[in-house]
Amino acid sequence: MKALRYQEGRLSVCEVSAPSRGGEALVRVRLAGVCNTDVEVVRGYAGFQGTLGHEFVGTVESAPGAGALVGRRVVGEINAGCGACELCHAGDPRHCATRTVLGIHGRDGALAEFLQLPVANLLPVPDEIPDERAVFTEPLAAACGITERVWIEPGARVAVVGDGKLGLLCAQALKVLTGAGVTLVGRHQTKLDIARRRGIETAKAEELPPSFDRAFDVTVEASGSSSGFETALRMLRPRGTLVLKSTFHGKTELDAAPVVVDEISIVGSRCGRFAPALELLRRGAVDVDSLVHEEFPLAEGVRAMSRAAEPGVLKVLIRP
Amino acid sequence: MKALRYQEGRLSVCEVSAPSRGGEALVRVRLAGVCNTDVEVVRGYAGFQGTLGHEFVGTVESAPGAGALVGRRVVGEINAGCGACELCHAGDPRHCATRTVLGIHGRDGALAEFLQLPVANLLPVPDEIPDERAVFTEPLAAACGITERVWIEPGARVAVVGDGKLGLLCAQALKVLTGAGVTLVGRHQTKLDIARRRGIETAKAEELPPSFDRAFDVTVEASGSSSGFETALRMLRPRGTLVLKSTFHGKTELDAAPVVVDEISIVGSRCGRFAPALELLRRGAVDVDSLVHEEFPLAEGVRAMSRAAEPGVLKVLIRP
Repeated sequence: MKALRYQEGRLSVCEVSAPSRGGEALVRVRLAGVCNTDVEVVRGYAGFQGTLGHEFVGTVESAPGAGALVGRRVVGEINAGCGACELCHAGDPRHCATRTVLGIHGRDGALAEFLQLPVANLLPVPDEIPDERAVFTEPLAAACGITERVWIEPGARVAVVGDGKLGLLCAQALKVLTGAGVTLVGRHQTKLDIARRRGIETAKAEELPPSFDRAFDVTVEASGSSSGFETALRMLRPRGTLVLKSTFHGKTELDAAPVVVDEISIVGSRCGRFAPALELLRRGAVDVDSLVHEEFPLAEGVRAMSRAAEPGVLKVLIRP
Repeated sequence: MKALRYQEGRLSVCEVSAPSRGGEALVRVRLAGVCNTDVEVVRGYAGFQGTLGHEFVGTVESAPGAGALVGRRVVGEINAGCGACELCHAGDPRHCATRTVLGIHGRDGALAEFLQLPVANLLPVPDEIPDERAVFTEPLAAACGITERVWIEPGARVAVVGDGKLGLLCAQALKVLTGAGVTLVGRHQTKLDIARRRGIETAKAEELPPSFDRAFDVTVEASGSSSGFETALRMLRPRGTLVLKSTFHGKTELDAAPVVVDEISIVGSRCGRFAPALELLRRGAVDVDSLVHEEFPLAEGVRAMSRAAEPGVLKVLIRP
């Protein structure tokens, strides 16, 4: 089968044998998405080598012990746990110490014709959700996951910093899930307009009014930049919470004094549960259609990755 | 009156007039303590000029509208709010935007013969607590304040990094208040022994066993150093909480990736409530006697500050 692989410092579409790990489901990929994390992996993040990609919707070809899934359209949670530790027994392998992660750590990913995951990771996709929306389940789940980490009151003021695809999903998800007042801060009017059409207040990063300083209960850093982190910190009220949703390129400077004096909380957030994200997609509560920038066939995977890495580009999809 | 003042880049004991702000209580200082923050102020932190010091026990000389306090031995919460904002109305001026802070921001401090504070800031000291212990109320309250910011389960594993006076108070307070298993990490055997005598597990920072990596639910950075921050981060389990209790000297590098991947929370903590700290002192639940390094008369305040700034020195007291 074809797969977009990163190995020995080189990105290429190769012909490889289909995965055949015993005991796991085999899924034929229908459509996959490129995440900033994939772009980072190609820059060396996480030291991963293998088939890239962790956002997909596919059709189950085989599913040991779960025959009813065969032929179903599914999405799949990307962390596969050991199955034996306390966390896995509690049904949450996201922090299992020996987990593998689809296309990121120890497991070939979704930018291929086929992938494998444990049966327990798969969720059927309701018929109302077309592939082009279902492929957003994973990043939307990550956005929804903020509410697993931070309690946001309905009356809270929330700012999301960064108008890329992650920021646009975070702003929409928080608006719908919490009822909080949400403001999206970004640099691109066309992207901010996507949020504005969903009733989200928007502001240009370079023109933030002084009234935004120390005014928000929760800020979400979704820009992946040090300057975004600084903006998110500056907008936070005393005892507010800054959610770190994206990893930076490299390190940023942390001045501990304001964090201590203003008693700020900085909370990391990674993967979220898929079920709430699927429900939002089923209800059409989140606009993902406007987030699609371009679609490529898998054979043009290398070109697709370059496109995804260009500044300002939203979601690039890859169809096997 | 005599006062230890920092102004125009110079530290000196001066003769100044006693404070006479209308509407506030006047307190004759009986004994005061030197905090690392005072040392930092003399290095330029917070841009403060005036009489230093915020840890004290004193006797009320006058108290407008609260005659019963006159002649009483008191300690005093150090944040004085505007009295009009939402926070002040809720009885918590610690984050009032226009607050003054005793000896730190906009208000002369406790390293003097007299000080002033709003009547509402004063708490009578039970007779069982001698001055030499009551003077620890403010830093002990700051240690107890961790439990206002982070919920610590009785069965939790907590590590405090830094065996200075702040770390020793944090470790003891958390042990008594939460029932958690507490480990103190430091570099000085004699200081670690103070904690060990109170049933706290101790470990030398340079000999941390590998089993401490990713093993603690909560870690408290109380060393004021970047390396302490790194140690506190390394010891934390996924989804654990790092409490930032001390400001660093300058900035530290923050690598956002592990904070996001392991979904860490970093929580700033500053001042705590005095009542729980007084209660711990009354019960003798915390050893503060062992934390006293040396006492100076106020006239030797400059020498006292140099002593407090020496590495490895615990609490320096100043008696007017």
